[in-house]
Amino acid sequence: MQTSPLLEHLMQSLRSLPGVGPKSSQRMAFHLLQRDRAGGLRLANALLQAMNEIGHCEDCHTFTEQSHCNICKNPKRQENGQICIVETPADIHAIEQTGQFSGRYFVLMGHLSPLDGIGPADLGLDRLAERLTEETISEIILATNPTIEGEVTASYIAQMCESKGISATRIAHGIPIGGELEMVDSMTLSHSFAGRIKMNR
Amino acid sequence: MQTSPLLEHLMQSLRSLPGVGPKSSQRMAFHLLQRDRAGGLRLANALLQAMNEIGHCEDCHTFTEQSHCNICKNPKRQENGQICIVETPADIHAIEQTGQFSGRYFVLMGHLSPLDGIGPADLGLDRLAERLTEETISEIILATNPTIEGEVTASYIAQMCESKGISATRIAHGIPIGGELEMVDSMTLSHSFAGRIKMNR
Ligand SMILES: [Zn+2]
Ligand SMILES: [Zn+2]
Repeated sequence: MQTSPLLEHLMQSLRSLPGVGPKSSQRMAFHLLQRDRAGGLRLANALLQAMNEIGHCEDCHTFTEQSHCNICKNPKRQENGQICIVETPADIHAIEQTGQFSGRYFVLMGHLSPLDGIGPADLGLDRLAERLTEETISEIILATNPTIEGEVTASYIAQMCESKGISATRIAHGIPIGGELEMVDSMTLSHSFAGRIKMNR
Repeated sequence: MQTSPLLEHLMQSLRSLPGVGPKSSQRMAFHLLQRDRAGGLRLANALLQAMNEIGHCEDCHTFTEQSHCNICKNPKRQENGQICIVETPADIHAIEQTGQFSGRYFVLMGHLSPLDGIGPADLGLDRLAERLTEETISEIILATNPTIEGEVTASYIAQMCESKGISATRIAHGIPIGGELEMVDSMTLSHSFAGRIKMNR
């Protein structure tokens, strides 16, 4: 924007956001300047605080500004004894929205990927091993993604659990509810056959 | 996000951006935290500076952090003698990208709208009247939008110019280049007939 280097800089900076190209960064900048400067300032301060203060929970490694996140600190969730292993903090968000799980989590912040040099230590599996020994854990639920790397990571952790005599389970993969069988890819369909469940005795 | 009130607040604040709903605000927040904290901080500072420092040019009312914008200060553009009237700073951006106009602008920051109580003073037309008297102006080009309000505003300004003996023109409206005649709405088609241009003597 020839008339304002600051506006030009704002448009450029908005493009750090995923999915924001030249047209939408322009629309966003003009919208904030013309109609919502308070919203723009609120966003600026939220960004500053979040980028500077949010770190990782010492127990589960999810995003938090505290040393231990609210889920890890919750005594009811500790009593539950289940730990669900996920790849990212966004996965916790999705699982919490189901309201079906009341244990704790462990976030890998990725998956095993030898080609990219990502090994067990990079995923904090040394910390997980400590927890498997220190805590009373009834079940490890493996909710890594259904990709090759996710499966390899799940297997690796299942073996860790095996060696400590802790039960490990894998969440089910199959036809999405409301999905039509003929529309599902063959990989998903194979999974849904392999993972079939008995309906009578 | 139960594990981090700051992250929750960031997701909420991102929704001030036009076109950003719950899903994309979540994707944006996680992306910045996991992969681009530097980009997040750069955006925060760009927002703070832009919201606090960008005001309006004293001559043309477009967005600028200076008293007079670079276009108004440019002697070549002053010599040109043409002033193009637009509704928003974004319109200047679009016209500059054509590279076809080398005069100056006047931004109304809206259009006449008696029902909403927006009259000539709200659009800064008193300042425009001053400029019509003070400066040597060869032509006023009316580039308000082809809406009822835009047309009414253009007519009003054309009359102001008339009373001062200054030529006022309206930009052409018609079939977009590359558009197919049968796909164009009838309003546009009527405009393109009414605005037809002679091709021979
Ligand atoms: Zn935690
Ligand atoms: Zn100006």
